[in-house]
Amino acid sequence: MANNNSMIDLETLRHSTSHVMAQAVCDLFPGTKIAIGPAIDDGFYYDFDTPQNFVPEDLVKIENRMKEIISGDHKFVRSEIPKKEALEYFQKLNEPYKIELINDLVDGTISFYKHDTFTDLCRGPHLESTGKIKYFKLLSIAGAYWRGSEKNKMLQRIYGTVFNTKEELAEYLKRLEEAKKRDHRTLGKALDLFSIQDEVGPGLVLWHPKGARIRVIVEDYWRSKHLSSGYDLIFTPHIGLGKLWETSGHLDFYKENMYSPMDVDGQDFYVKPMNCPFHIMIYKSRLYSYRDLPLRWAELGTVYRYEKSGVLHGLLRVRGFTQDDAHIICAPEQMPEEIRRVLKFCINTLNAFGFRDFNFYLATKPKEKSVGDDKMWNDAIKALEEAIKAENLLCTVDEGGGAFYGPKIDIKIKDALNREWQCSTIQFDFNEPERFDMTYMDQSGKRVRPYMIHRALLGSLERFLGVLIEHYGGAFPFWLAPVQIKILTITDAQNKYADKVRDALSGYRVEMDLRNEKLGLKIREAQMEKIPYIIVLGDKEVSSGTVAVRTYHSRETVTYNLQDFLSILRQEHSLNNI
Amino acid sequence: MANNNSMIDLETLRHSTSHVMAQAVCDLFPGTKIAIGPAIDDGFYYDFDTPQNFVPEDLVKIENRMKEIISGDHKFVRSEIPKKEALEYFQKLNEPYKIELINDLVDGTISFYKHDTFTDLCRGPHLESTGKIKYFKLLSIAGAYWRGSEKNKMLQRIYGTVFNTKEELAEYLKRLEEAKKRDHRTLGKALDLFSIQDEVGPGLVLWHPKGARIRVIVEDYWRSKHLSSGYDLIFTPHIGLGKLWETSGHLDFYKENMYSPMDVDGQDFYVKPMNCPFHIMIYKSRLYSYRDLPLRWAELGTVYRYEKSGVLHGLLRVRGFTQDDAHIICAPEQMPEEIRRVLKFCINTLNAFGFRDFNFYLATKPKEKSVGDDKMWNDAIKALEEAIKAENLLCTVDEGGGAFYGPKIDIKIKDALNREWQCSTIQFDFNEPERFDMTYMDQSGKRVRPYMIHRALLGSLERFLGVLIEHYGGAFPFWLAPVQIKILTITDAQNKYADKVRDALSGYRVEMDLRNEKLGLKIREAQMEKIPYIIVLGDKEVSSGTVAVRTYHSRETVTYNLQDFLSILRQEHSLNNI
Repeated sequence: MANNNSMIDLETLRHSTSHVMAQAVCDLFPGTKIAIGPAIDDGFYYDFDTPQNFVPEDLVKIENRMKEIISGDHKFVRSEIPKKEALEYFQKLNEPYKIELINDLVDGTISFYKHDTFTDLCRGPHLESTGKIKYFKLLSIAGAYWRGSEKNKMLQRIYGTVFNTKEELAEYLKRLEEAKKRDHRTLGKALDLFSIQDEVGPGLVLWHPKGARIRVIVEDYWRSKHLSSGYDLIFTPHIGLGKLWETSGHLDFYKENMYSPMDVDGQDFYVKPMNCPFHIMIYKSRLYSYRDLPLRWAELGTVYRYEKSGVLHGLLRVRGFTQDDAHIICAPEQMPEEIRRVLKFCINTLNAFGFRDFNFYLATKPKEKSVGDDKMWNDAIKALEEAIKAENLLCTVDEGGGAFYGPKIDIKIKDALNREWQCSTIQFDFNEPERFDMTYMDQSGKRVRPYMIHRALLGSLERFLGVLIEHYGGAFPFWLAPVQIKILTITDAQNKYADKVRDALSGYRVEMDLRNEKLGLKIREAQMEKIPYIIVLGDKEVSSGTVAVRTYHSRETVTYNLQDFLSILRQEHSLNNI
Repeated sequence: MANNNSMIDLETLRHSTSHVMAQAVCDLFPGTKIAIGPAIDDGFYYDFDTPQNFVPEDLVKIENRMKEIISGDHKFVRSEIPKKEALEYFQKLNEPYKIELINDLVDGTISFYKHDTFTDLCRGPHLESTGKIKYFKLLSIAGAYWRGSEKNKMLQRIYGTVFNTKEELAEYLKRLEEAKKRDHRTLGKALDLFSIQDEVGPGLVLWHPKGARIRVIVEDYWRSKHLSSGYDLIFTPHIGLGKLWETSGHLDFYKENMYSPMDVDGQDFYVKPMNCPFHIMIYKSRLYSYRDLPLRWAELGTVYRYEKSGVLHGLLRVRGFTQDDAHIICAPEQMPEEIRRVLKFCINTLNAFGFRDFNFYLATKPKEKSVGDDKMWNDAIKALEEAIKAENLLCTVDEGGGAFYGPKIDIKIKDALNREWQCSTIQFDFNEPERFDMTYMDQSGKRVRPYMIHRALLGSLERFLGVLIEHYGGAFPFWLAPVQIKILTITDAQNKYADKVRDALSGYRVEMDLRNEKLGLKIREAQMEKIPYIIVLGDKEVSSGTVAVRTYHSRETVTYNLQDFLSILRQEHSLNNI
């Protein structure tokens, strides 16, 4: 959104504003200890250790004090002093976090920045003076562990932002407001789609009827497209013997993300953090020949991975999620074609859900540890590049950014607010076929190693549905809406006709609101549920056999003959339109 | 199948035959210690502690020795002796199992039965003499722990059967043979439907592509019927906080069936043995009013329950299974109608899968512990009885056989071999609504307790698919067959036409066999896969635009115009026919 030049400017501006905020906090809240305060993507923050908890009203006070400091137009002055003196300075001020930071630095001189009465340990650069700060806003208060570790003390973080122009700030705040309105956690509650409850377990999602209805539509679409695209579906358990992840190597390099084992008859069982070992065990249950390949095995496999409770975030970061996982097992000569197919399939699927704009990231062989020979890596990377080229796509190459077991393409989708979400991935695996000794019989009767490709199109259903909710702001397109049409009556006199209309709409997801409530209230409630079509029935509609229809998106009312309305629905929303 | 009179006869006959078998074993295998040998449903067994392992050839030897004993026509003689003497008798013979059994008996006299050289501790009754035994057969050898406990020594069990007539024995052995051919474990492997692998974990099912295809069809059917029958679908996690099962009480009375807990951030998490606490937590996430009821919430919820490895049996007894679970939450006045609906729904669903014959078992209030007041029990039992009556069904009442938390109906289906399988259940729960304090707002604005009914129509998908496999002997009806049509060519000359035929069949599940193999082999293989329609294409078919079709069930070939065949398929197998 911003070019590199203005980004640097913004970073300096934001960093300096964070210093000003820190001074304001220290001035207003004596006894405050300061930690760190960097510029970040959309603004800045500073972490404080204060005797009291900040409340939202404090942000206004701090902003006002900042305005005073800014109007003083104090110069930012850089100085370099020896480490020892720096330590003495902060020891005198009793600033334990700064002392810890300085102790971690190598010996030598250390740069300080001072403005007005406030001095901070800092690399810079900074603005010339505080007066350059014009369009800023403090945004929120959050808890944050010192140095990100929950073993340390929880500090208080204040987030803010600052821009060069009034318009940019306004635009950003508007976008923030819009994002807040679309927050899937708020909408999830308002539309009764799902809940995540501490009593059930953090990061574990309960899908309520309306959210589950959307999920079923997504799953049905996913299954039917996979079946018609040459995939087989499979099902595997959610727990398995530890030996599986010993063989795969995950108990070595992935253990911290796995739940602790359960003892069953003296053997360790784990809740699965991924589906691959099970898919491989199906593969190994018989001998495959080159005639049987490629195999494309897909599963909506629910996996459980440990995440720190601090990083959990609604549906976007959870502890249990359903991957739309597939493994493609193929001969080397089939691999490039398979990669092209899967990339195309991925884009078509994301398009179907309303996403048109993507960024592609190709991650290549890491410099340090890796498995698989050079030819495999080169062939795989070439196949990924050529698939991207064949689809006329642009791709950012992350040199050396691949996992040790193979290169991959990650696809980030852009939503209605232009935010990037990582969902899809196409990932080679040179590790597990080796460790599980997967083979097939080639044309000469020799047992050889197949290629195995992991891929997820939606990523996880939880995350994808979270993104969908935010993308559409809860106002789902007709085919995804849990309730597509709501029929409202003005009085009981229309109830019989309402039944007739509902029966005519059989096959669609229809709800009725026949309550003895004011029509305005009924309409408002249906609009709050973001239902695509609201049909209002009064005596006029009954006598003329018509329906008065409001659409959620246009919000205007049009009257149709019932049959005409049915034709419109059929034309506009046949499943072939997806 | 047999009336009570002949059952008593058979039991005596079988018990006596088991004594004769025990004598034969003792005669042939010196050092054998005898344990117990009762009559069972379809025959008898005897458990032995022998120095060597029996091999199948031993059964013939034992049978031959039994024939000699039978031809001796030895009388079965009953005697009653004091416990002390009984002990001395078996101490002299060094029979530790008999001694243990006698020690457990109360003091007094003990009955013995003797024939020829063999004497056993036994209540009887027995036949007059061994000569009455005519039509018997030894069937199999199995391991069995002494007194069923894995803490005890593993003994060897020999199973046999015996009937009054040659025809009955022949009929039984034929049925056994048929059951063996239909064994879902054998068919599951032959048709590559599923596997259960020790390396993955005992009792955990991997669904291979063809088995998963059937499962998806079953699930799709299930979902669509639930949605059109006024159910909502929901999804819940596979793990949850221990507190849930503390509240439900399961950690008290069901703990031995639950897997050991996993520690997450110092809290106990369990893999779920049932779905109800999660459904209840969704219910409790908002306030419901009488207007919102009834709620019908269904989930294909995969649960994990510990079963001893000895009782695991293919898909029929597993450790992980997907319940087609639903909870109906309703007001008391809605309850009878809900019970009628669910019973009707259950029968319709089982009918759709080809089951027409059921037995119904109504289990009422247990004499000892129970929760819920008498009125609730009475109303619930009355509703269950009336639903049964309304459907003109017969029902066996299991007086006092209900769980402590409510009455239930279990429905056992009869398969093609007339065997009973317990699948469906409709079960009241007076326990959890109380423990979780579930309420709704009634018309007077008071918070009152709803009824909650658990129900499963198919029971578990694993078990139900196991039963389906055996019921159909793997030859699934068209709508359930993973591959519906296979196209075979005689030579490569028909390949292009084969493509055309396949394209015309789009929408059906079609496979092609274009290999350069003899037609006979291709047909045989397709028949072994039990595919409903096999289309054979030769030059004649190409030139006349026809297809030569064999059906699996008739095995005769009929030639159709391609278009006519398509019409037949559409007529015979439209989804509306289900």
